[in-house]
Amino acid sequence: MTNWTLAARAAKMNSSAIREILKLTDRPGIISMAGGLPSPHAFPLDAFTEACQTVMQRDGAAALQYSTTEGLPALRQAVADFLPWDVNPDQVLITTGSQQALDLIGKVFLDPGSRILVEKPTYLGALQAFTPMEPVAVGVDSDDEGMLVEDFAAKVGTGTDKARMAYVLPNFQNPTGRTMSEARRQALVEKAKELGVPLIEDNPYGDLRYEGESPLPLAARNPEGVIYMGSFSKVLAPGLRIGFVVAPQSVYGKLTQAKQAADLHTPSFNQRVVAEVIKDGFLDRHVPTIRAMYKAQRDVMLMALEHEMAGLDVSWTRPVGGMFLWVTLPKGMDAQALLAKAVERGMAFVPGAPFYAQEPETNTLRLSYVTVPAEQITKGIAALADAIKNYTP
Amino acid sequence: MTNWTLAARAAKMNSSAIREILKLTDRPGIISMAGGLPSPHAFPLDAFTEACQTVMQRDGAAALQYSTTEGLPALRQAVADFLPWDVNPDQVLITTGSQQALDLIGKVFLDPGSRILVEKPTYLGALQAFTPMEPVAVGVDSDDEGMLVEDFAAKVGTGTDKARMAYVLPNFQNPTGRTMSEARRQALVEKAKELGVPLIEDNPYGDLRYEGESPLPLAARNPEGVIYMGSFSKVLAPGLRIGFVVAPQSVYGKLTQAKQAADLHTPSFNQRVVAEVIKDGFLDRHVPTIRAMYKAQRDVMLMALEHEMAGLDVSWTRPVGGMFLWVTLPKGMDAQALLAKAVERGMAFVPGAPFYAQEPETNTLRLSYVTVPAEQITKGIAALADAIKNYTP
Repeated sequence: MTNWTLAARAAKMNSSAIREILKLTDRPGIISMAGGLPSPHAFPLDAFTEACQTVMQRDGAAALQYSTTEGLPALRQAVADFLPWDVNPDQVLITTGSQQALDLIGKVFLDPGSRILVEKPTYLGALQAFTPMEPVAVGVDSDDEGMLVEDFAAKVGTGTDKARMAYVLPNFQNPTGRTMSEARRQALVEKAKELGVPLIEDNPYGDLRYEGESPLPLAARNPEGVIYMGSFSKVLAPGLRIGFVVAPQSVYGKLTQAKQAADLHTPSFNQRVVAEVIKDGFLDRHVPTIRAMYKAQRDVMLMALEHEMAGLDVSWTRPVGGMFLWVTLPKGMDAQALLAKAVERGMAFVPGAPFYAQEPETNTLRLSYVTVPAEQITKGIAALADAIKNYTP
Repeated sequence: MTNWTLAARAAKMNSSAIREILKLTDRPGIISMAGGLPSPHAFPLDAFTEACQTVMQRDGAAALQYSTTEGLPALRQAVADFLPWDVNPDQVLITTGSQQALDLIGKVFLDPGSRILVEKPTYLGALQAFTPMEPVAVGVDSDDEGMLVEDFAAKVGTGTDKARMAYVLPNFQNPTGRTMSEARRQALVEKAKELGVPLIEDNPYGDLRYEGESPLPLAARNPEGVIYMGSFSKVLAPGLRIGFVVAPQSVYGKLTQAKQAADLHTPSFNQRVVAEVIKDGFLDRHVPTIRAMYKAQRDVMLMALEHEMAGLDVSWTRPVGGMFLWVTLPKGMDAQALLAKAVERGMAFVPGAPFYAQEPETNTLRLSYVTVPAEQITKGIAALADAIKNYTP
């Protein structure tokens, strides 16, 4: 008998709780606000089709050959150019989606037992990406503006237990939809710098702001102390798996070595297609159409919540961008138990618990407003309200 | 000052020695037999161009949306169908190139200090992929037919030091070009089964056989004890990064969880394009053209070696498929030192040392015959012979 002995870390790996929920709820007749997908109506199909043709005709075999680990020079340059601070293309590493960036960061910076600080709640996929490296993820108390700087400082730790990094998602966070204010960003960056703690800034949704002006990224405030992660998944399409990292030169080399060992390089063809699509300011024309679409969907959901949740002890966030909002149920109500009731009534959401590194607030849930048609949003929120009214512990 | 503390494993990561050599030798005027690239003339450009159009027109947004971690069902089915033993598509995991499969296997099976057995020499990229998980790679004595079963058994180890796996490349191995015989395959599989040691069978070149019949894969002989890795990089094109794993059900789930944490899924678009290209027996028509091309190139190189190395104490392998052959220089001659002389004379190769887990045989080198035009092969081998004749330690 072959003895498949697993690594110790394998015992800690698990499948995304969301993917398991989606298997149960992704079926005809269910209005699903559980998914994390961007709207397929936001994908520029014609531009992609045309870019595929252009790339194959212009670049031929080069588009299908092995290429450098760092990424296509034209794409690295384009990323450096559109970011709102002074970025050298040599600092840009193209990744196979943002998820890979998390994997590489975990490998390069986390030993078993390493402390990392995360928001309360935080992006589930980041916890999943870091888990194989066996860190101890510690949740930092957070409010509508993100991590509380005092609690961040209190939880940094000392000596060998000092936090290796703090992972934050400043714009329209997944799962809460909240955004770090100008003041909070500045205070967090200064405190992190003072304490010597690296920040990992994840910004997949930043371009999807439909209200107000965006404060500068954390990385712009202290480029030597922050690794910045971005993605084309939400502004173009996720199925090509093109993300990127901007890293200080001191750690760029190690991230690149980890990337080379992980998949040699991100698909050459996909990088060329994205570079072709975005040249000549395509994003400046295209992204406003996504913003308008998502804003309209958000408005419908906010209106439905106002109407349907009236008189219930329920609150929710009012995101100024992105794809998600976060609902807090009455104390003691368990979102996991509520989900079964909601599905019976024809709607689905994601319970909040899996988004917490520890001590989940079980009376929370995440709603996506971007893939459900407007009339269905109203119906779905009504079904959710009905499930809440009929909740029995 | 931000304190970027690296994980212990990061100290062991390094850049591929080959990529570093390529940076030095990949320049105009150098006949490079150092690369590991397939010939760009082997890429079916028209079929890809057409498939991109078909996929975008037929599948639209679905081709650009997030998709399942396991991979596109049609592609998993196609893989199961073309493999020469009874494979259930549920055992097939689509990976972002074969390199990712190595990364996932390392994460799932290797603890720091875990013993793994590899051929002498072995594929450098595998060593690089496993290294971040900090195993101890032990080279097993190997001859023209691959691992010697007696030395395999002698090096398996016992107790907590027992080998977690043995990694082998049975067809036209990278770097040596050698192939495991029917008898050796059967003997290795039986011994591995008896000793309970899992085998990792890497087969990126298997379809590029231009002489004789292929013995059955190791996985076909003991499906519960072997993880099989394949790739479309050599029969279609590497730039799409589409590989696959066939794994026993007992470990499939953990590999899939590791994959989900690593990059969520392999690009949806690329999987659909490959599935579209290969349907209706395309590979049966296309791969013979690659075989014919590579065989002709191999023949030119073998003839040039016969002619140019006459009278020198130099030997080489005669691969029956794949892309590489392996040269053994006179004892005491150092291939790394020889490389400088060869580059002066206008040709480049890869010294053999980086392909050894330990105790490199420094009088070896790898030649690729697939990307250099025939007339240049003759010229390059003459330059190599001249460098050998003028070698001074």
